Amino acid sequence: MTSRKRLPRPRARMAAPLLVAALLTGALAAGAQTPSPEAKPRSMQEILDGSKAGDWRNLDPMRTLYMDLDAGRVVIELAPEFAPAHVANIRALAKGGFWNGLSINRSQDNFVVQWGDPAEEEKDRRPLSKGARAKLPAEFTRSNRNIPFTPLPDADGWARQVGFSDGFPIGLDTSDGTAWLAHCYGAVGAGRDVAADSSTGAELYVVIGQSPRQLDRNITTVGRVVQGMELLSVLPRGTGPLGFYEKPEQRVTIRSIRLAADLKPAERLKLQVLRTDTPLFAELVEARRNRRDDFYKRPAGHIDLCNVPLPVRTAPEPAPAAKPKR
Amino acid sequence: MTSRKRLPRPRARMAAPLLVAALLTGALAAGAQTPSPEAKPRSMQEILDGSKAGDWRNLDPMRTLYMDLDAGRVVIELAPEFAPAHVANIRALAKGGFWNGLSINRSQDNFVVQWGDPAEEEKDRRPLSKGARAKLPAEFTRSNRNIPFTPLPDADGWARQVGFSDGFPIGLDTSDGTAWLAHCYGAVGAGRDVAADSSTGAELYVVIGQSPRQLDRNITTVGRVVQGMELLSVLPRGTGPLGFYEKPEQRVTIRSIRLAADLKPAERLKLQVLRTDTPLFAELVEARRNRRDDFYKRPAGHIDLCNVPLPVRTAPEPAPAAKPKR
Repeated sequence: MTSRKRLPRPRARMAAPLLVAALLTGALAAGAQTPSPEAKPRSMQEILDGSKAGDWRNLDPMRTLYMDLDAGRVVIELAPEFAPAHVANIRALAKGGFWNGLSINRSQDNFVVQWGDPAEEEKDRRPLSKGARAKLPAEFTRSNRNIPFTPLPDADGWARQVGFSDGFPIGLDTSDGTAWLAHCYGAVGAGRDVAADSSTGAELYVVIGQSPRQLDRNITTVGRVVQGMELLSVLPRGTGPLGFYEKPEQRVTIRSIRLAADLKPAERLKLQVLRTDTPLFAELVEARRNRRDDFYKRPAGHIDLCNVPLPVRTAPEPAPAAKPKR
Repeated sequence: MTSRKRLPRPRARMAAPLLVAALLTGALAAGAQTPSPEAKPRSMQEILDGSKAGDWRNLDPMRTLYMDLDAGRVVIELAPEFAPAHVANIRALAKGGFWNGLSINRSQDNFVVQWGDPAEEEKDRRPLSKGARAKLPAEFTRSNRNIPFTPLPDADGWARQVGFSDGFPIGLDTSDGTAWLAHCYGAVGAGRDVAADSSTGAELYVVIGQSPRQLDRNITTVGRVVQGMELLSVLPRGTGPLGFYEKPEQRVTIRSIRLAADLKPAERLKLQVLRTDTPLFAELVEARRNRRDDFYKRPAGHIDLCNVPLPVRTAPEPAPAAKPKR
């Protein structure tokens, strides 16, 4: 192919080993494989291609939502460790078919896409499903004790420390002992009114632009989209205030939102997400912090929390079972 | 209105004046109006509503591109101070009608939308217009001498210092004397091949997701979209490698790209962008750094460069001219 102008296309190139070593600081980097002087750092794709089964984890059906639209399926991983009351409500709402036939009502450029019951007045809205509570506590933060945490060594302006907890980008404050899910691209949160405890999980939004981290610790985040973001991010922007659609016919109908666990096992997607507590993930972060392919002339030496890719894949077919020995 | 669950809706509330004062550090903050103990910080909307004519500047027709699509018009402000050779080429290409009838060929989720000549082979491509050069220098950075610069006091991981230069978000390095346009949402850059000097400005892209700041100083950035982002950000994502459309019919045709100066004055849009070197802008940044409306329970005390809004408006009608005195 001749010069079709494009942005970065991955290629390998020789590394500057001393520079790499100098940047290998902090917990994530400490886990990375230290390159020998002759070693050529691997690209993200090479790292993923070299991953082992243990570098991935299966999506737990009890923590996985399928949002089905005419355009296809969006898969959301829930984070019950961070928002247990909201996730319990979302499970009850999904089981009750609460969102089925409701709609996506808002698409605000460089901010969020939001769905739920479009009725303006409380009295006109669909009642919450059996088992869903009308009043939940705000779950903006949780204790940072006893959570898995792989720190990102890079500085962050919004939090004292940032990193990953079981696949989710999070912020953490050692001074007050809290942790919270970060509002990165694809983060799913629970819309609320002015009162901190006015969200129920029935109204959800997803981040579709530059990470609005000012929302961190101001709203309950319940999970993140792991597949199908491109079905939500392209929805025409609403022309009403805050990007709400002005006409009912502009809304996008939700066929259904279901918990994967409520489907028969054979009907569930076999998705896996990359673990964030492995040397392989540390190597991936370093590969993104300092791009080494021919395209990049100046590795950044830094990465922001919300720029770290969190890969998802369909689980490889299991090897055929060995024949039973007689 | 009862509780239609939604994200932040602006409301005013009383400030915590000591906290505000404590956070007023650095150049931008120094320019902000120090609130009296009784003062209620203004919201962004209130700040803009209170702006004076001198807080805005007119878009210069020589620096303004109109990209017309079936869906509407995208307006791009060019930055000749940062990429003089590329902007000169872009002006020549626009004058020659280079892009008219060509297409948007790539839409990669959470990254970029890109346009130009879709032909794979150089020989099949439309020749550059008269006056456009086939070979340009890389314009990744420029000297930071003699440029307007309003620093953002907040820390940034990608650059030693960040701030605004004549309405553009930029990075700056005092150690090597350089400055560069930052890859924020809406930034427009010149696609290139592996060679640093392989861009001509004929192939352009715009950032549509989380800011890919790793591209800073790796590619020539030529301007930013000031109006019409929502026409580009919603384009269906391409399913080919890097988000290129796989079928020609998926491409979006460009009716025309023209320099505003090549249109008659009456045909030009009367757009203004907020100046970034004023006390009003400093107040706006502070209002976004620490949201004070009822929705926010915890002001962030921080803002990232790419989260700072850069408002654009249609110029107000001039007051009727006074009658000449006799």
